[in-house]
Amino acid sequence: MNIILLEPAELTDKTVVLRDHRAKHIVKVLKSEVGESLRIGIVDAQMGRAKVLAVVAKYPFEVRLQVELENTPRSVPQIDLLLALPRPIMLKRIFSQVTALGVGTIHLVNANRVEKSFWDASILSEQECRSYLIRGLEQAVDTRLPAVRVHRQFRPFVEDILPELAPRYCNMLLAHPQTENRLVTSMKTCSGRTLYGIGPEGGWVDFEIERLTAAGMLPFSMGQRILKVDTAVVAVHSRISQLLESA
Amino acid sequence: MNIILLEPAELTDKTVVLRDHRAKHIVKVLKSEVGESLRIGIVDAQMGRAKVLAVVAKYPFEVRLQVELENTPRSVPQIDLLLALPRPIMLKRIFSQVTALGVGTIHLVNANRVEKSFWDASILSEQECRSYLIRGLEQAVDTRLPAVRVHRQFRPFVEDILPELAPRYCNMLLAHPQTENRLVTSMKTCSGRTLYGIGPEGGWVDFEIERLTAAGMLPFSMGQRILKVDTAVVAVHSRISQLLESA
Repeated sequence: MNIILLEPAELTDKTVVLRDHRAKHIVKVLKSEVGESLRIGIVDAQMGRAKVLAVVAKYPFEVRLQVELENTPRSVPQIDLLLALPRPIMLKRIFSQVTALGVGTIHLVNANRVEKSFWDASILSEQECRSYLIRGLEQAVDTRLPAVRVHRQFRPFVEDILPELAPRYCNMLLAHPQTENRLVTSMKTCSGRTLYGIGPEGGWVDFEIERLTAAGMLPFSMGQRILKVDTAVVAVHSRISQLLESA
Repeated sequence: MNIILLEPAELTDKTVVLRDHRAKHIVKVLKSEVGESLRIGIVDAQMGRAKVLAVVAKYPFEVRLQVELENTPRSVPQIDLLLALPRPIMLKRIFSQVTALGVGTIHLVNANRVEKSFWDASILSEQECRSYLIRGLEQAVDTRLPAVRVHRQFRPFVEDILPELAPRYCNMLLAHPQTENRLVTSMKTCSGRTLYGIGPEGGWVDFEIERLTAAGMLPFSMGQRILKVDTAVVAVHSRISQLLESA
C-alpha cells in the first residue's frame, strides 16, 4: 500500500478517521506517528498529503488524518485492455497488475475457448472486482479506477460494440502468435487511445480472429514463445507503454 | 504444457514410455491417439517431434513415444536477471514466468529489505526450484533450463562476483525509481549479454544502489508507478526484449 485511498463519501470535511485495514497499515507497516505526512488519494479524484492528527496504535486501530488535496486529478492512462475471460484466480491477479501498470478500461469478453464456468465467478461482481482494482491503485500510487465492461457474448461485442468504440482508438492491436507482424512496426503514432487484445489459454479460434480483425484489430506476434495469459498481459502492456513513451 | 519435456536419462534409445503427469496430460488434455505427433524436447538439449506408438488411456496412464530430435539445441536467451530474494510464493511465479519469457541465469541475492525467513524457503532447494523452471519451459516451448545462482551475502556478491561477471555483459541495468534515466536511452547496442536487476519490496537501500552502480550497473526508471516485484520482473524483461529485438 503505497498510497492511502479514501472513498469520496468518506471525506466530508478536511479530516477523516480510519478504523479498518488502512488504519492497521498506517500503524503496523508505516509505523506513522502524530505529525507525519502520508500520501493520500480519493478514488477517481485527486491525490494529496494527509497529516496524522491522532493514532490509536493498538487494536482496534484508529487513525485521524487531515487531508490536503492537489487541485487536479491525474489523467486516465492511454491504454485499454480487451481480454478473453480467464480463470478467476488469474483474473484477480490481472486486475491488480494491469491497474498498477495503468489501464483505462478493461473489456472482458467471451470466446470459444473460455470455460463456461468462469462466467459464474464472484470476481465479476462489482464489489469484489473493485477490491482488486483498488489494490493495483494502492500499489502504483494512482487514484483512477479502471472501468470494467463485461461482454458475455462475443458476436454482439465484436459486431456492434467494438465498431462503436473504434473511432476513439489510434491503435487496436491483437496479440496472436500466427502472424509475422511485430508490435514495433504495427504501432501508429497518432492521437487517440491504444487497445490491445489478449486471447484465452489456447488462443482465439479462426472465426474470432477473422471478426476481431474485421472490426479493426491488427494482429501482431511477440515471437515463438507461448506465454500464459497473465504473463502475456503484463508483457504486452509493458511493450506498448514503452513504444508510446518513446513516440 | 505446450511441449513434453524429457530428462536426458529417460531417452535411452529412440523410444520412451511415460507413466506420470505427462502421460496423463497427453491422454486427458491433448487427447492424443496412436499415430499422432507431439512436440517434444530434452531438458537442456534438442527439441523434436514424438510419434505416439501406444496409449493406455485410463489410470494408470501410459504413453509410448518414438522420438525424432532436431540436430542442434536452440540458443540460450541473451538476458539474465539479478533479483533480490522475494517471498517464496512470489519467487515460484517469477521462476516460471521469467523462464517462459526466456532467461539465461537468475542470480538471487540478499538485500537489506529481504526478510531473513525467505532464505529458509524450500523453493531454494534445487529440486523444487527446478520444477518451477520446467513449468516455464513447458509453457514457452523451450528446453534450455535457466541457471540459478544463490548469493546469501550481498557484499561478497557485489564486490567479488559481480565484477567478475561484468565483462560478459553489454548492458547491466538496475530498475530504480529515483533516477531520471529511461531504459530506452540506457541500453547500448553491442555484443554481449544483458543483465537487469530488480530490488526487494520497498527497494534497495542507498548503500546497495551505490555498490551496484560501482560494480557497473546503470539505474533506470520506468516512471512514477510503483510495481510489485513479480510485475516489475515481467515488465522490465519485456521492455528489454523489445529493445534487443529492435536493435
